[in-house]
Amino acid sequence: MQIINNKIEGSAYVIGPYKNPVANVKSGEIFQIQTLDAFGNKVDSSTSDITKLIQMPFVNPLVGPIYIEGAQKGDSLAVTIISIETSRDYGVSAIIPEFGGLCATPLTRTLNEPLPPKVMIHPIKDNSITFSTDLNIPPIPYEPFYGTIGTSPELEAISSLSPGSHGGNMDAADVCPGNTIILPVNVDGGFLYIGDGHAAQGDAEICGVATEIPTTGTLKVDLVKQLSLTNPRVESDEFIMTIGSARPMEDAARIAFYELIMWLESDYGIEKLVAYQLCSQVARVRLANMVDTLYSVVAKFPKKYLPNKI
Amino acid sequence: MQIINNKIEGSAYVIGPYKNPVANVKSGEIFQIQTLDAFGNKVDSSTSDITKLIQMPFVNPLVGPIYIEGAQKGDSLAVTIISIETSRDYGVSAIIPEFGGLCATPLTRTLNEPLPPKVMIHPIKDNSITFSTDLNIPPIPYEPFYGTIGTSPELEAISSLSPGSHGGNMDAADVCPGNTIILPVNVDGGFLYIGDGHAAQGDAEICGVATEIPTTGTLKVDLVKQLSLTNPRVESDEFIMTIGSARPMEDAARIAFYELIMWLESDYGIEKLVAYQLCSQVARVRLANMVDTLYSVVAKFPKKYLPNKI
Amino acid sequence: MQIINNKIEGSAYVIGPYKNPVANVKSGEIFQIQTLDAFGNKVDSSTSDITKLIQMPFVNPLVGPIYIEGAQKGDSLAVTIISIETSRDYGVSAIIPEFGGLCATPLTRTLNEPLPPKVMIHPIKDNSITFSTDLNIPPIPYEPFYGTIGTSPELEAISSLSPGSHGGNMDAADVCPGNTIILPVNVDGGFLYIGDGHAAQGDAEICGVATEIPTTGTLKVDLVKQLSLTNPRVESDEFIMTIGSARPMEDAARIAFYELIMWLESDYGIEKLVAYQLCSQVARVRLANMVDTLYSVVAKFPKKYLPNKI
Amino acid sequence: MQIINNKIEGSAYVIGPYKNPVANVKSGEIFQIQTLDAFGNKVDSSTSDITKLIQMPFVNPLVGPIYIEGAQKGDSLAVTIISIETSRDYGVSAIIPEFGGLCATPLTRTLNEPLPPKVMIHPIKDNSITFSTDLNIPPIPYEPFYGTIGTSPELEAISSLSPGSHGGNMDAADVCPGNTIILPVNVDGGFLYIGDGHAAQGDAEICGVATEIPTTGTLKVDLVKQLSLTNPRVESDEFIMTIGSARPMEDAARIAFYELIMWLESDYGIEKLVAYQLCSQVARVRLANMVDTLYSVVAKFPKKYLPNKI
Repeated sequence: MQIINNKIEGSAYVIGPYKNPVANVKSGEIFQIQTLDAFGNKVDSSTSDITKLIQMPFVNPLVGPIYIEGAQKGDSLAVTIISIETSRDYGVSAIIPEFGGLCATPLTRTLNEPLPPKVMIHPIKDNSITFSTDLNIPPIPYEPFYGTIGTSPELEAISSLSPGSHGGNMDAADVCPGNTIILPVNVDGGFLYIGDGHAAQGDAEICGVATEIPTTGTLKVDLVKQLSLTNPRVESDEFIMTIGSARPMEDAARIAFYELIMWLESDYGIEKLVAYQLCSQVARVRLANMVDTLYSVVAKFPKKYLPNKI
Repeated sequence: MQIINNKIEGSAYVIGPYKNPVANVKSGEIFQIQTLDAFGNKVDSSTSDITKLIQMPFVNPLVGPIYIEGAQKGDSLAVTIISIETSRDYGVSAIIPEFGGLCATPLTRTLNEPLPPKVMIHPIKDNSITFSTDLNIPPIPYEPFYGTIGTSPELEAISSLSPGSHGGNMDAADVCPGNTIILPVNVDGGFLYIGDGHAAQGDAEICGVATEIPTTGTLKVDLVKQLSLTNPRVESDEFIMTIGSARPMEDAARIAFYELIMWLESDYGIEKLVAYQLCSQVARVRLANMVDTLYSVVAKFPKKYLPNKI
Repeated sequence: MQIINNKIEGSAYVIGPYKNPVANVKSGEIFQIQTLDAFGNKVDSSTSDITKLIQMPFVNPLVGPIYIEGAQKGDSLAVTIISIETSRDYGVSAIIPEFGGLCATPLTRTLNEPLPPKVMIHPIKDNSITFSTDLNIPPIPYEPFYGTIGTSPELEAISSLSPGSHGGNMDAADVCPGNTIILPVNVDGGFLYIGDGHAAQGDAEICGVATEIPTTGTLKVDLVKQLSLTNPRVESDEFIMTIGSARPMEDAARIAFYELIMWLESDYGIEKLVAYQLCSQVARVRLANMVDTLYSVVAKFPKKYLPNKI
Repeated sequence: MQIINNKIEGSAYVIGPYKNPVANVKSGEIFQIQTLDAFGNKVDSSTSDITKLIQMPFVNPLVGPIYIEGAQKGDSLAVTIISIETSRDYGVSAIIPEFGGLCATPLTRTLNEPLPPKVMIHPIKDNSITFSTDLNIPPIPYEPFYGTIGTSPELEAISSLSPGSHGGNMDAADVCPGNTIILPVNVDGGFLYIGDGHAAQGDAEICGVATEIPTTGTLKVDLVKQLSLTNPRVESDEFIMTIGSARPMEDAARIAFYELIMWLESDYGIEKLVAYQLCSQVARVRLANMVDTLYSVVAKFPKKYLPNKI
């Protein structure tokens, strides 16, 4: 099995067409990636302020681009995540003074003083995360996923911190083992990038940082010819899902629901205004992140209410 | 048991201090309300365009105000919903041309042509809803809740279509049997208003209309002296929850999370920045509505991760 | 000439249909109002923190309701402001810790510490305002207007701090002597409310407080029968204007431009898509406020580009 | 004088560090650029639907990158626009079905039908623009500016259609002859890009298209060593200005005002909370665009109220 090993020196900090591929993968091939955590594995219990450790824009290092053989503009990649294991016995979380959902940031600027910095180390053992040994908080289950997964735009190179129609830093917990993420292809080879392993994360990732881990991930990419997507899709056993990333948050939700309704119409024959009304009765929503440059919202349709595919 | 029977002529269309109470209730007393659906029970299978049937602002008729004995400014009301039964064998849903989450509205104005109107009647029987007899959609379970519940502001009278810090038209499916909703008291007697029964609703209530039903609800209100809230809280067996209503949607989410974090600090002794970081690992979010004058977001903390109360 | 003299005990803090009129005015009659400043004239040089002086929701006291004879639902009121004189030799401005455009507020909640409170007294003499005797800032001209002007909704009572489709606390410097403000009538008599005199204000009213003054204003109200407006209009010598109030700010701008384009179509015969394109070449915009419960945006069409009225 | 002549084949469609410079310029050197219009000069009176003519992402062709000798990360470029002449006797405007401020777009998705496409040709002669020969609209003055001007980020390549902290497609009419635009340097040589000439534009550029022209522009770039900016600044005879680009629009305004206040503090010695309060009395705002991927707002401080520089 091919193993794509990320190191700091080969990491990608933008998702774009300008970096040489780090590996070639065939449609259907199972392969492994080794990812650094969002802070380049630099944080340990001695770190007090993460902003002093990282040097923008060199944060959230990704594995990639991975060249998918045969992929061409107008196709899609169906990335199935088989497993995600952590290669460290702790996760890292933090308060970063001008980053997060409940503080002033460079995008939502105010004159208030920034929050104080703070780092927390969360031990991980036997699929269980210890939030704090001081506080009496029961253990949190290890439920890993990739915060960042995306394919290159045709001309743009987008920060690894940004989500968008190309996928990217969506911080959607549905990008997890057992699920398949479907992404648009805009350049030859698709140029897939992955990173930002999370051992656990709440909806919204409210403080801006999950339980950040380096990982070994096992994946498979299936090339879907001539499926032209405008935004990412996800499939699980339980749901078909679409992800919208935008600001304000209602625009992210609008994109996600629009894509879901169009999918229900094109693949399941439910006329779009009926699908709109049906979603109003049974859809589910995950607020994936409200901390990144764009917010990400997942619209979910329960498979149990799907009619047969047309 | 006291039964508060709503009729069109006695309905409230604003939540405010200017209407005489329709009933007096004691703290701890179990009582029943009978509510009309959001369209005043006027829609049946012969209706094609709901906008021709309703005359603004006389929509979403509420039962109320209910005077809670002893309630004074600075107290709170804990409203426990014991059961919600529908008094009709069908629910109503609709596309209303300039209302909903995926169309131009008077608040998000565009020059595009409005959507066409459309009404759907959903038969309800044996706790099961038939979405459509034409489409091959499996039955949807009857999971009722009240879309609108709120207490009067001190001076303002707020449309029954609007959510806010007073509760109101939040369309949050957590306002359901088994759960307790805690609302601020701003005037003597609290002035509680309830209505807008839903037999089922997806997150976001995307088309603007759920499966709308008239109901018989059984409730209990407990007066909580000297608990001054700035936004609604909800408790279920599984979660403690706070609800924020605002536009843009991120501001609704900010309010909800801020209130949740302050609750974790005041009642459970988790310092607010630690609670912020903890929520980033384990919180859940429900997008209640993205269709009303303000959007409503529910931030949820799983009780299984709570330390003991202080 | 009729003089409507506002005192604290008779002030209105909501714009609604539930308070008895303070005066009757005929269409075309010239009358005077005496308004308190937004803080009820309570601030002087000894005040350090305005939040300790005011008791919510009793802030921004308005004169009203003024009953306009003959006004009925579906009509409009054209309010011409003839002059605004201040009845005090200083204006008041302030930083209010959780209010303003560049700080966390109850609607845009964060965990940052609030700003420190601060009051400034600005002497006014000979139509000139002294910002500070310490700083070397040239005098600011006295350019008065009313921050708040509105008519009652049919059922709602809206805080005097809120703008909306009824007018209200728009903080639009175009509500000034020489201009005419056109407002919808929703109840018999129209129920006009006015207050919140400003001696000067920057676009956006960024810190949330202008140079606040008590005033004597001379006004005239003309009843316009059967003109049904959905949002306020303003006319000056130079512009026809429409005001939208909403959040997020783009929705306020959308409303304002939509109304302006519809006005160009209905009164000047410019087809709406042509008017849209024409506005894209010549329209002007004032950001009136970005601090109130809704933001207010004024879309302006220069009269010099108007064809003849149809 | 050096003339940098843009042709379709050499045009840039992203602002980034990956394209080879098209010219080298010294600090203080006066040079000329020749720009294509936003549609690559492809539209004439026979065009009915612009979307059929352009092939995304190849729209808004820019001249660049221009390498400024000596520019290094941490410096700034002060770009003075000396003149802008049009090289064609007409400007182009259009309604593009899913682009603009008053319609559904890929970022504000709805289920409404798109607007119909429409192209308008506006003759330009003797510094005067004819909006329409059919409609009786007086001539519009020729007031040219560049819609797009920006410098390369360190790693990202940003669409020529997007504004941001790097400048870009701000559509701010203050980027005009006589004014100086100050932009951050993030890479050696600065990598300046310019294009998108407009003969006239209303505030907000509401339909998404101004009076688009090809130009010959005369410019000068002065290198400002060790001035590290986070967002663009502009200076005119009358104002110092800062530009924020973000969504929602209030975030763009927050950025612009924050930068303006910080500038007043650092260069003019006005303590930031005093500057905040002062701006609340005298600042002006231009809504530059509400149609691009981010909205752009210009905060303006009148020079007549400035104390001496410190």
